[in-house]
Amino acid sequence: MGPLLPESLACNERIDGKMSKAKGKAVVAQSGGPTAVINASACGVIQTVLANEDHFDGILGSLNGVLGVLREELYDLGKENPDQIDLLRRSPSAALGSCRYKLKDLKKDRQDYERILEVFKAQDIRYFFYIGGNDSMDTADKLSQLAQEVGYEMTAIGVPKTIDNDLAFTDHCPGYGSVAKYSATSVMEAGRDTEALYTHDTTTVHEVMGRNAGWIAAATGLARRSPQDAPHIILLPEVPFVTEKFVQQVKDCLSEFKRCFVACGEGVKTPDGQYLAEAGGSFGQDAFGHAQLGGAADAVRAIIENEAGIKCRTNRAGTAQRNAMHFASKTDVDEAYMAGKAAVAAAMQGVTGKMVTLVRQDDGGAYRCTTGLADLGQVANAEKPVPPEFIDDSGTGVTDAFRAYATPLIVGQAEVEIADDGLPRYARLARHMVEKKTGREYDAG
Amino acid sequence: MGPLLPESLACNERIDGKMSKAKGKAVVAQSGGPTAVINASACGVIQTVLANEDHFDGILGSLNGVLGVLREELYDLGKENPDQIDLLRRSPSAALGSCRYKLKDLKKDRQDYERILEVFKAQDIRYFFYIGGNDSMDTADKLSQLAQEVGYEMTAIGVPKTIDNDLAFTDHCPGYGSVAKYSATSVMEAGRDTEALYTHDTTTVHEVMGRNAGWIAAATGLARRSPQDAPHIILLPEVPFVTEKFVQQVKDCLSEFKRCFVACGEGVKTPDGQYLAEAGGSFGQDAFGHAQLGGAADAVRAIIENEAGIKCRTNRAGTAQRNAMHFASKTDVDEAYMAGKAAVAAAMQGVTGKMVTLVRQDDGGAYRCTTGLADLGQVANAEKPVPPEFIDDSGTGVTDAFRAYATPLIVGQAEVEIADDGLPRYARLARHMVEKKTGREYDAG
Repeated sequence: MGPLLPESLACNERIDGKMSKAKGKAVVAQSGGPTAVINASACGVIQTVLANEDHFDGILGSLNGVLGVLREELYDLGKENPDQIDLLRRSPSAALGSCRYKLKDLKKDRQDYERILEVFKAQDIRYFFYIGGNDSMDTADKLSQLAQEVGYEMTAIGVPKTIDNDLAFTDHCPGYGSVAKYSATSVMEAGRDTEALYTHDTTTVHEVMGRNAGWIAAATGLARRSPQDAPHIILLPEVPFVTEKFVQQVKDCLSEFKRCFVACGEGVKTPDGQYLAEAGGSFGQDAFGHAQLGGAADAVRAIIENEAGIKCRTNRAGTAQRNAMHFASKTDVDEAYMAGKAAVAAAMQGVTGKMVTLVRQDDGGAYRCTTGLADLGQVANAEKPVPPEFIDDSGTGVTDAFRAYATPLIVGQAEVEIADDGLPRYARLARHMVEKKTGREYDAG
Repeated sequence: MGPLLPESLACNERIDGKMSKAKGKAVVAQSGGPTAVINASACGVIQTVLANEDHFDGILGSLNGVLGVLREELYDLGKENPDQIDLLRRSPSAALGSCRYKLKDLKKDRQDYERILEVFKAQDIRYFFYIGGNDSMDTADKLSQLAQEVGYEMTAIGVPKTIDNDLAFTDHCPGYGSVAKYSATSVMEAGRDTEALYTHDTTTVHEVMGRNAGWIAAATGLARRSPQDAPHIILLPEVPFVTEKFVQQVKDCLSEFKRCFVACGEGVKTPDGQYLAEAGGSFGQDAFGHAQLGGAADAVRAIIENEAGIKCRTNRAGTAQRNAMHFASKTDVDEAYMAGKAAVAAAMQGVTGKMVTLVRQDDGGAYRCTTGLADLGQVANAEKPVPPEFIDDSGTGVTDAFRAYATPLIVGQAEVEIADDGLPRYARLARHMVEKKTGREYDAG
C-alpha cells in the first residue's frame, strides 16, 4: 500500500477522513521496552487526535500498555499541559507507562479480550492505537478480530516500535536509528579508549541489546570508518559463535592492530542454538517466555581470558542505550512522530487491523521515507533478522550495503531541551485519571 | 598560590615569561585512564608551546605516556596537521597514547629515571608536561627530583586529569565534569525506563566508575530533581555497604514509588573494607597493584534478587562513560584546555615540580574558575574522597552543598564535529616519529 501522508504534514494539522466510524474516544498505549522515540510516536498520535476533535471525543492514555485497559486505569490526555505533550517528542522512555503483559491465545482464553471490550464499551472507546513490537501487534490484531466477531465497531491500528529493528513489512522501525547512532558512537568512543591503553587493556567487549536479531550490533559497524577503528569484530546472533574461530580472529586482530575491540549482540548463540549467556538467578524468563539476557559480554570475556590468555574489559550500557535521547537521531524522531500521525490518519480513513510501516523511497535520490500499512496479523508472526547481504564474508563485519541501509537512519541530531542545571528536561505527564465505569476490578498481570 | 592565567587567554596567544630555563624541546605525555577532555589539555599544551617558538625548540608527543620516553618512542607534534591538533579539543580518549606503567621507587631503583634523563639529554628535552592522576604526578615529581640531583636543567609540570575527581589541592579535576554530566544523564534516561516498565522490571542497578572515591556515583544524584526521580539510592565507596539496611531501603523505595533505581560506584565496600565485587579470572590487579573492579552492580543485583526476591537489571557503561565526548561538559572542556595552557605558562615563568590546579573563585557571584599550582609530591600522596557534608543523612543521597559544588561543572554542551555519516569526527595523530638518538633499546613495561 502506498504512502498515506506526506512527511511535510505539519504538527496539529487537521485531516480530512471519511467518517466511516462512529465518533468515540481514542486510547493510546505503549508496550514493551522503551525507546528514545516511542514518546515521539505517542506525541504524533495525541496531537493529531486532539487537532481533529470533530472526529474524536478526546484521547485517553492507558497506564502501562494493555494493563491500563484491563484495569481501567485510563487518563485524559486532553487535560495535560500541551507543552508537556509537545515535550514528549523530545523525551525518551514510555511516558504513558509500558508493560510486558501478554494476552492469552484468543482461541484458548477470551477473558482478557472480553474485559478489554467491556472497558472500551463502558468508556466509549472506538479507536485503539498501540505502539509496540510483535507482541503488541498480536494483541491489537486479536482484539480487532474479537471486536468484529461481536459486532463492536472499533478501529485498531499499530505503530511500530522496537530498537531491535526486527519487525517485518517495514523498512526499519522507529527506535532503531537512535539506538544505532548512540551505540555506534559509544563503540567509537570506547574504541578510542582501548586504542589509547592497549599496552594495558588490549581487548574490550562491548555488549549491545538485540535478543534475536543483530541489528544494533551491526550498527556499531558504522563506527568503523577505517580498518584500525573499532569494532574489529562484531558478534551477531545471526552468525553462530564458534570459539576456535573467534579466538583466532582476536589473535589476528592483536597482531595487526595491537588491540581488539569486540561488539557483541546480547543474543549471540552457539552453533547448537544456545544463548552464549543465560541470566543467572531465578528470573531467567520474562512474561512472554523470552529468556532474559545480559552477560553475553562476560561470557565472551571469559573465553578471551581463558582461551587467548589476554586481559579483557567489558561494557554493557543496558537500558541506558535504548533511552539515550541525549544523542538520538533526528531522522528517527521525525519518523516516529510521522508514524504516530499516520496511524490516526489511517483510522480516520476507515482503516483497521493494520500497522503503520516505514517505506523507503528508492528513487535513486537522497533518502526519503513515507508511511504504508501492513496487516497486524502478518507483522505479529514474522521476524526480520539481519539478512546475509548485510554481513560480510568474515561473518563478523558489515557490508557497504548495510552501511547504505543504516546510515540515513542515524543522520541528524535530535533536539533536546537542556535545563539550567546542565541536564536534559524530559516530559512527565500529570495523568488525570478518568472515572472507572465498568463497576468492577479485574485481576490482570 | 593565585591564578596564573586569566581564563580569557586566547588560543595560540604568546606568553611573556622570564627566560629562566635553557631553550630546549618540550615533551607532552598522557597517562592512566582516558577521559573526554584529556586531549583538550594536550591541545592547550601543544598550541601554547607552538605559539612560543622563541622559548621552545618544538614539542614532542610521547607514545603511551612515560613508556614512550623510556622506549624513546617520540613524535614531532609540530609536524601534525594543525586542524587535527585543534580537533583534539573536541576528541575523547588519549590521542597521544596512554599507559599504566608505574616507575619504581626512586630510592630503590633508579634505572627507569636514569633512562628517562638519558633520553631527555639525547633529545634535548628540557620540559616535561605530564597529564594524569596521582601516579603520574608521582612520576613527574621523582623525575624532577633526580634531574635536580644530577644537575640536569629540566622543568616538570603536571596537568591534572581524572574522571575520579579524587586529586587533592585542586577544587576539581578536568574529566570529572564530563563523566558527571554523561552519567547523570544516563541515569536520568535509564531511570525513566525503570519508571515505564515497573510492572515488569522494578529495580535497576546502574554501575559507574570510581575506584576509591564516589564522586561519579554522587554526580548521578544531580539527575534527581524530585524524590520520584532516579537514582533513589546511591551507593558510595565512602559509605560502608550494610546488606540489611540496603535491602530495607530498596523495599521502602518500592513501597513509595513502585520502582527502585540504584546508582552504584564500582568501589563500594563492605564494612570491613572489602570491595563488594572483585574481578573474576586471573587478572585481578593492574600494574599499580590496584584491584581491577567491575561487577559491583552484579553483586548488588544478586543481593536484591536473593534477599528481597525482586527481579533486577544491571547497566554498566564501562569505558564508554569516560570517553563520552558526544555529551561532554563545555565547562570541563574549557577548563581542561586552560589547565594545559597554564602548565606551559608556568614552565615559561620558571616554575617546576608543580601541578596546575583548578581554583574556584568563591566571590559570591557566578561560578568562575582560574588556575593555581600545587607541589607534585603533595598531590601524589593525597586522595580526596567525597566529604561528609556532600552526603546526606541516609548515606545514600547527596546534599544541596554537593549540588552547588557539582552543578557548575556540568553546565554547557561541548562542541562536537559530526561527519556526514551522522557520527562524531575525532582526531587521530599522524605521529611522525623522531630519530632515536640514545643508540640503545630499553626494556620497559
